[in-house]
Amino acid sequence: MNPSDPRVVLQQRREKLAQHFCGPAILWSGSESPRNFPANRFPFRASSHFLFFAGRSLANAAIHLEAGKLTLFMDDADANDALWHGPSPRRQEIAKQMGADQDYPLSKLASWTQDVATIPVQDSATRQIQEKQIGRTLGSAKQLQGHNRQLAKAIVAVRMIHDQSAISSIREAAAVTVKAHLAGMTATYNAQTEAEIRAAMEAVIMAHNLTCAYNSIVTVQGEVLHNQSYHRPIRAGDLLLADVGAEKEGWASDVTRTWPISGSFSSTQHDIYDIVLAAHDICIAKAAPGVEFRDLHLLAALTLAEGLVSLGILKGKAETLVERDAHALFFPHGVGHLLGLDVHDMEDLGDLAGYAPGRKRCDRFGLGFLRLDRPLQKSMIVTIEPGFYQVPSLLKNPERQSHYQDCINWDQLVKFKDVQGIRIEDDILITAKGAEVLTAALPSVPSQIESYMNRCI
Amino acid sequence: MNPSDPRVVLQQRREKLAQHFCGPAILWSGSESPRNFPANRFPFRASSHFLFFAGRSLANAAIHLEAGKLTLFMDDADANDALWHGPSPRRQEIAKQMGADQDYPLSKLASWTQDVATIPVQDSATRQIQEKQIGRTLGSAKQLQGHNRQLAKAIVAVRMIHDQSAISSIREAAAVTVKAHLAGMTATYNAQTEAEIRAAMEAVIMAHNLTCAYNSIVTVQGEVLHNQSYHRPIRAGDLLLADVGAEKEGWASDVTRTWPISGSFSSTQHDIYDIVLAAHDICIAKAAPGVEFRDLHLLAALTLAEGLVSLGILKGKAETLVERDAHALFFPHGVGHLLGLDVHDMEDLGDLAGYAPGRKRCDRFGLGFLRLDRPLQKSMIVTIEPGFYQVPSLLKNPERQSHYQDCINWDQLVKFKDVQGIRIEDDILITAKGAEVLTAALPSVPSQIESYMNRCI
Repeated sequence: MNPSDPRVVLQQRREKLAQHFCGPAILWSGSESPRNFPANRFPFRASSHFLFFAGRSLANAAIHLEAGKLTLFMDDADANDALWHGPSPRRQEIAKQMGADQDYPLSKLASWTQDVATIPVQDSATRQIQEKQIGRTLGSAKQLQGHNRQLAKAIVAVRMIHDQSAISSIREAAAVTVKAHLAGMTATYNAQTEAEIRAAMEAVIMAHNLTCAYNSIVTVQGEVLHNQSYHRPIRAGDLLLADVGAEKEGWASDVTRTWPISGSFSSTQHDIYDIVLAAHDICIAKAAPGVEFRDLHLLAALTLAEGLVSLGILKGKAETLVERDAHALFFPHGVGHLLGLDVHDMEDLGDLAGYAPGRKRCDRFGLGFLRLDRPLQKSMIVTIEPGFYQVPSLLKNPERQSHYQDCINWDQLVKFKDVQGIRIEDDILITAKGAEVLTAALPSVPSQIESYMNRCI
Repeated sequence: MNPSDPRVVLQQRREKLAQHFCGPAILWSGSESPRNFPANRFPFRASSHFLFFAGRSLANAAIHLEAGKLTLFMDDADANDALWHGPSPRRQEIAKQMGADQDYPLSKLASWTQDVATIPVQDSATRQIQEKQIGRTLGSAKQLQGHNRQLAKAIVAVRMIHDQSAISSIREAAAVTVKAHLAGMTATYNAQTEAEIRAAMEAVIMAHNLTCAYNSIVTVQGEVLHNQSYHRPIRAGDLLLADVGAEKEGWASDVTRTWPISGSFSSTQHDIYDIVLAAHDICIAKAAPGVEFRDLHLLAALTLAEGLVSLGILKGKAETLVERDAHALFFPHGVGHLLGLDVHDMEDLGDLAGYAPGRKRCDRFGLGFLRLDRPLQKSMIVTIEPGFYQVPSLLKNPERQSHYQDCINWDQLVKFKDVQGIRIEDDILITAKGAEVLTAALPSVPSQIESYMNRCI
């Protein structure tokens, strides 16, 4: 069979899992979440662990994995379903397409659950079914114990290093995401609100019949890190921060650009943007197998600190400022995270994927939000996303002000009030010698962004 | 206070409820459903019952209602939340804006739950919290008993007859929906796939900072009634069926148009379209207070049957064909439903809202999918949506074929194979003397659709 045949890909994933975990495991796909009444549902999104091994988004299904063998459990659609949803493929046909060894209706699952390991699904309705069928409560996916934890570790080992099929899907998602961002830049000239720019961007993703990997951030208030409202009018002096990514068959991309509403960065915006871009570029240049991601984060912090010192916003030696976490006043999140079937890949398992064995989240102000602390490996995909933000809840916090009073030149900072939030985020594939930027087609240099925005005016 | 002040509107809703239900009630808002890990969630959509009385979409909140009084229970966002989501209004401020009499953190809710009635929320995670706090299992919202059922009946009485605020919101949703459909018609000329037309339509809704009231249907396979895939290429001879509606602050619109990909209906498409349009128009013309919705459904059925007889597709007398449900071979759903905060309003309560007391779903083939069987009343909003479909699972069903063998001229039907699915759906407000079409600005006559589609070519 062709190595890119889905059955071969899935077989290889199962065999890799079997190398790391020898017992039986069952993974549930989840069910559609109701929006306001049972027939009006959110679009179905299968559990990522299920999707990885099943290769296909199936609601109300489960797979049993053991020693490289796959057994599919699901029910055929009932006869009335065809009127509403058209003819559905039968379970046997689906099982054949995914290379399953056996397939049964869900009613048979009960006799397969003894001593199996599992990962608790996210949606609460399926979780209840899962716990009932497996005969015990499961607790949080973030705090697994015993053989469930062993299974989770094995899945982390397999999912973290992407196969060609996964890389190809993420590549496609990234390519559409690039188009979406370009459409956003183009739409800015005539837009009056954040919502209009968001619409132009998501329309590209939808037109390619893809979905968003996460709720888009498209805002002139980029200092609110997960801003998900879009009602604000946009004004010529504003910067727009757009963090929008497409998902292809579950595989995510995650990209941020920041551009000036007017089509031209002000000198203050340009100054800060260049610092963020320098942090972005140096992290990408240094990324390679064996490099500690935490070191990239600290390199980004140092680059930002140096830049802010050179602009007179921070005072002192950059190394010392980073040691004191002063950079985190303006860059309070991590420089990136794993990317895969989840936009923060495997974050349902807490830090099991993001943190190497034996490592724990640090409670330092400048490191607490770092989602990835591992040496990079070939075929990992991660984001690189430094930023600069003026977050009122940080900068106006009296304790922080007092702790960092000798580090900040407030009079100088005030001159940069038209720079509330900048982030530049790309998706990179770790290669044998370095990193490939999967989203390299999207301009990140200010002059390129400006010329793209102004090409039609 | 101004009668359109939200506090006045909500006060009036509570007072109406108190006229129908005298005990205490608690309504939960629900929580965000996780998409694949806890921080990556579907956009929040509050429970419609909560939204109706709270007037505001708040996650993880509950309201206690008794004798016209409102008590709000929710927790203030924690201090770290501001970094990710910006400053949040405090509970007290929200309570003031909604005219609440009192407000407490969620921890105080436990002492308010004795003997309260409630409606089970749809999302399973909140349902578990709800059952725990209320101290008993709740069963399905479709089969409520005791005082929960009394509460549900009272809510139905209040929500079914819309106040000016509700009507105004649905009007706004409908206006944006009209623009979305026009954008779909415009986009058809250059589109290659269903997905591209869907994107153009939803982009309009998104650009107005509204959401879709339900998952859009945008398909050349309109005979699949709830088709929610968009991958198909579109071809010049196809009809496109688009069932897309915006939601404004929870208030839904629900509109369908069917248009020719080429910009011109073929003569067979035109023939069938005219029959569906006649059914649509006559139902709207006859809709008025006191009119039984079931009679409108049967009128639509009769109009379709007459038309299909005149085209030689059905054989016999139209009245007899409708009595035998032969129309349902081509029109297997109801002619409409209640519209409000849910696109099928209050369908979470089963048929409690849709069916007048004492009435039950009929198991007749031609009536089983009728969602509304009540006399119309002033200030109800309903959809009128007759259709014609060639559904393989109905027309190729041997039992149906045998039962209706004397009714169908198969040789004639074959000539209409380019008409797989047509639906024309508008939203109407029942007025003192008749009905106002809230979506009247959208063309439904074939010549108008054609000239709109071809205006720029």
